[in-house]
Amino acid sequence: MKIQLALDRLTIQEAINIAKKAEASIDWIEVGTSLIKEFGMESIYEVKNAFPHKYVVADIKTIDNAKYEFGICYQAGADIATVMGVSPQATLHMCYDITQKWDKMMMIDLLNTTQETQQKLAIYNKAVFCHHLSKDEQEIGGKSSRSYTNLRAPFFEGAKVAVAGGVNLETMSSLSLLTPDVVIIGSSITKAKDIEKAAAAFKNKIEDKGAVK
Amino acid sequence: MKIQLALDRLTIQEAINIAKKAEASIDWIEVGTSLIKEFGMESIYEVKNAFPHKYVVADIKTIDNAKYEFGICYQAGADIATVMGVSPQATLHMCYDITQKWDKMMMIDLLNTTQETQQKLAIYNKAVFCHHLSKDEQEIGGKSSRSYTNLRAPFFEGAKVAVAGGVNLETMSSLSLLTPDVVIIGSSITKAKDIEKAAAAFKNKIEDKGAVK
Repeated sequence: MKIQLALDRLTIQEAINIAKKAEASIDWIEVGTSLIKEFGMESIYEVKNAFPHKYVVADIKTIDNAKYEFGICYQAGADIATVMGVSPQATLHMCYDITQKWDKMMMIDLLNTTQETQQKLAIYNKAVFCHHLSKDEQEIGGKSSRSYTNLRAPFFEGAKVAVAGGVNLETMSSLSLLTPDVVIIGSSITKAKDIEKAAAAFKNKIEDKGAVK
Repeated sequence: MKIQLALDRLTIQEAINIAKKAEASIDWIEVGTSLIKEFGMESIYEVKNAFPHKYVVADIKTIDNAKYEFGICYQAGADIATVMGVSPQATLHMCYDITQKWDKMMMIDLLNTTQETQQKLAIYNKAVFCHHLSKDEQEIGGKSSRSYTNLRAPFFEGAKVAVAGGVNLETMSSLSLLTPDVVIIGSSITKAKDIEKAAAAFKNKIEDKGAVK
């Protein structure tokens, strides 16, 4: 089980400083959508430059213009780029193709997708499927990632799955039992008083369960 | 009927130069998603700075983190920001609220929405509803904006509607008959040999129809 640290609503330098403190306990580093939209590709370039040995996830949330958007992310150094599951099929196809050509990894954000859509998306079997309870759904809609009872519908059998949205030490215990391949953690680490300690606590939680891959 | 010039896959300076040439014939200037994702908020700030008297549309395509994304767009000078119609309801609500608070305008991108979703979106009655055939749907999916036969389902009665995606001088004629409030034009102007002339041709097409508002 990998930990992906999501960096959002920060300057690029703040993001790098936080990731440095958490570095020993995390696996993948996500350049959040807010960083990309606020600072552009520079955010991906700088983060990859600071962590050349880590997988960097560009949370670009592509929904159109797939070739261009995925191209600039990979060129800036991203190892993984995200596309919305609610995108037109043409966009998903193109993202998948570009990703294969670059020999990188695609993550499909399942935000607001139906089961029916998820089943169709399962054909992209080299992708990571990210169950995502969005910030707005949590803060305005009052939903919680506690509600997940299963991350692997039959059509995701054998696929890599991730989970994101309001993951904290408490929800981590129940989420771990669902054995996601990737757990995406944001403010529970980035806003912690002691970032190093907070990140280590998540790592320990996984190791306690003997779920490290 | 207003013309919105969409600026995509350009540097910020190229975008400004193109918009300067088209300026006399266009109404709104769109900072395309590709500019925002490549260069960040700087793109909106610079374009608004170059055209303080024009409405600037930030095609931010928000799908989460509504308060932050719309906030930074409006702060950078955007008059209008876009949200995806396929977003969770919490996100759409928040975008609408923020937009009212800033006394700005929200555009809802109807890309890949069902009729059922569109009908639900109609409650945001101060928004502009943008029928959008995406770049990928056209180039990979082989679809055309010629296929539009109606932009105003009964639930959009009295609402402002826009149309985007592969609009050229040929399709402009049939689209004009559907009386959108806003026609969004990209490469038919930005990639024209003579940008000023191309933009003027679109303006003339509208004036010929006597459809100017």
